[in-house]
Amino acid sequence: MDRTTAITGIGQTEFSKRSGRSEIQLAAEAGRAAILDAGLSPADIDGMVTFTLDQNDEIQLMNNLGVRELKWVSRTSFGGGGASATAQHAVAAVAAGAANHVLVYRAFNERSGHRFGQPDDSRASERMNWYLPFGLDTPAKFYAMWYSRYMQRYGVTNEDLGRYVVVARKHAATNPAAWYYEKPLSLEQHQESRWIVEPLLRLYDCCQESDGGVAYVVSRVEQARDLAQPVVVINAAVQGNVGSDVMFPYYGAELSDYPDAEACAAQLWQRSGVRPAEVSVAMIYENFSPVVLMQLESYGFCAKGEAKDFIGDGQIEIGGATPVNTNGGLLGEGYIHGVNNILEAVRQIRGTAANQVPDARHALAAAGRSAILLSRE
Amino acid sequence: MDRTTAITGIGQTEFSKRSGRSEIQLAAEAGRAAILDAGLSPADIDGMVTFTLDQNDEIQLMNNLGVRELKWVSRTSFGGGGASATAQHAVAAVAAGAANHVLVYRAFNERSGHRFGQPDDSRASERMNWYLPFGLDTPAKFYAMWYSRYMQRYGVTNEDLGRYVVVARKHAATNPAAWYYEKPLSLEQHQESRWIVEPLLRLYDCCQESDGGVAYVVSRVEQARDLAQPVVVINAAVQGNVGSDVMFPYYGAELSDYPDAEACAAQLWQRSGVRPAEVSVAMIYENFSPVVLMQLESYGFCAKGEAKDFIGDGQIEIGGATPVNTNGGLLGEGYIHGVNNILEAVRQIRGTAANQVPDARHALAAAGRSAILLSRE
Repeated sequence: MDRTTAITGIGQTEFSKRSGRSEIQLAAEAGRAAILDAGLSPADIDGMVTFTLDQNDEIQLMNNLGVRELKWVSRTSFGGGGASATAQHAVAAVAAGAANHVLVYRAFNERSGHRFGQPDDSRASERMNWYLPFGLDTPAKFYAMWYSRYMQRYGVTNEDLGRYVVVARKHAATNPAAWYYEKPLSLEQHQESRWIVEPLLRLYDCCQESDGGVAYVVSRVEQARDLAQPVVVINAAVQGNVGSDVMFPYYGAELSDYPDAEACAAQLWQRSGVRPAEVSVAMIYENFSPVVLMQLESYGFCAKGEAKDFIGDGQIEIGGATPVNTNGGLLGEGYIHGVNNILEAVRQIRGTAANQVPDARHALAAAGRSAILLSRE
Repeated sequence: MDRTTAITGIGQTEFSKRSGRSEIQLAAEAGRAAILDAGLSPADIDGMVTFTLDQNDEIQLMNNLGVRELKWVSRTSFGGGGASATAQHAVAAVAAGAANHVLVYRAFNERSGHRFGQPDDSRASERMNWYLPFGLDTPAKFYAMWYSRYMQRYGVTNEDLGRYVVVARKHAATNPAAWYYEKPLSLEQHQESRWIVEPLLRLYDCCQESDGGVAYVVSRVEQARDLAQPVVVINAAVQGNVGSDVMFPYYGAELSDYPDAEACAAQLWQRSGVRPAEVSVAMIYENFSPVVLMQLESYGFCAKGEAKDFIGDGQIEIGGATPVNTNGGLLGEGYIHGVNNILEAVRQIRGTAANQVPDARHALAAAGRSAILLSRE
């Protein structure tokens, strides 16, 4: 399946705090934009992939778009951790011959509608009932214990996290599609923002809550060559789930590790033959700022415990060793559950990003439990 | 992907009306049984597939079973209509090289817990809000208008439906795993049961509500040869979604058709090269009895409008042209959302079914929007 498929089209709506329209409308707008971007028509689409959490029914979307038959439909688990698994599903479907052109979509009113960041007892279930009675009822709380151990072990302060946030917001400030376009953040402003989980996470360490839709199309490489855009090869697409749950790797020997990201990295480098130093740009899912530091280390862009200095030395900015989240990331551009990061990785390989990395050849889109590497042909 | 993979293990719990234990326990029991049946150990499993509707988290299940890393996780949409799509996902994952041994599972307390047959306003959503205010709040109501047109067009009576139900219950009566083991139903008993949707569906035309878990393992054919069971090749696995929604193909020219099943059939026969007359046994998903008649016609086992006579002539019994639902189906064995039918198809190819079709070579498991054909090597 490696290097046999390509992302042939991308599309998105505006990213806002109140879209003013239905989620299926957002999905249809983004989906149609992606199909037309590829130079395809809706009738060419014969597969769809989205998240289990997405509220948009595939049948409703196909009827809205004018898709005639879906020979492949699948959904990824684990919320944002499965963001890049959408590509793995689409690649497997196309590579195995189940479908020719798979539309991946994610669309929601996650700020004006159901907000993921709020306490939510609708999460109650056989599994979550082990956590909710203890007050673990928001993602910030779930993950804080994990981050706490990481930060304690390596001496990472909230100011260190702020240095990442400043870079993300710097990138957003020059990306017209970003919610924080023309609104950079200083380290002082970051440090003045209110605590969400003291002494770990301040307001600006948390991703946005956003309304919006994004979509992309996966096709065979041979077909991509005849379509409208430069060929963006899916070099490898992986999932790595090693048992981490809710409070994260609490079954593991060392809570400060990110074993799921390490499992993804091991597969990705092995399958692609690409080394971390060869990656031109890394899009890294951040529901909260600490996971950027942890994933930089998990993927081998720097050694364990060194991410804070890697960031402090300017290595994640354009011109640095590994430019990160050039769209502003989920903190700066918008929180479309990580799939907007995949679109930015495509733009970087095409050479059309707002904050373009010169001569980008390999772009990573990592999302905790899943990852893809996009490459020039 | 066709003929490159096999179902190497199957496992299930008892099918009951009150399991007395959690859904994750049911999933773990069925999953472990399937893994051991294949001659594998939990550490060999590196992929999982289930339904979007399944409440069992993959991470919780892997930790319960002792699975070490999941490189593939996916879920199928559309409830029971996606039952056989679980196999398509697993086949694509294995054929494309994303995983080696994929565990498919479906487990729930669907009678003692949340009952699908009851009116349920938790279905409220952007999409369902077009139906719920008009009283379409149970599956029996959703589909009744569709069945009504089919029955009116071809002169099918509730007694004709009863003739299918009698066969399903006959098969269940000699299947020790069936809820209705040793409890056959006469046509008179069927006709005396109360109306659910008059004059279409009586109580015994509706599938059971069941507690239970089922699971199976998909591996490469070459690996299957070295494992514990006879090789059951997945000849073809398809999805066919052509826009049918809730009240079913109401966008189509003719409401009495089953275009999704026809789309599955077209793909299945084309991919496998097998003709309907060569199918040894057909497992056909039936939330309600009419869809057996409609699918018999959609798959070409008989002509349109002739299913009632095909059934009346004994052609779906063992010894007939196309034995159907030899386990008793979802009406007779239990409603494990259609996946129990896949297990019966495996047993038929292995030659180990309670109601064995002599020398079974090709077994269909059709579930509306998805279908698989299993074959001897």
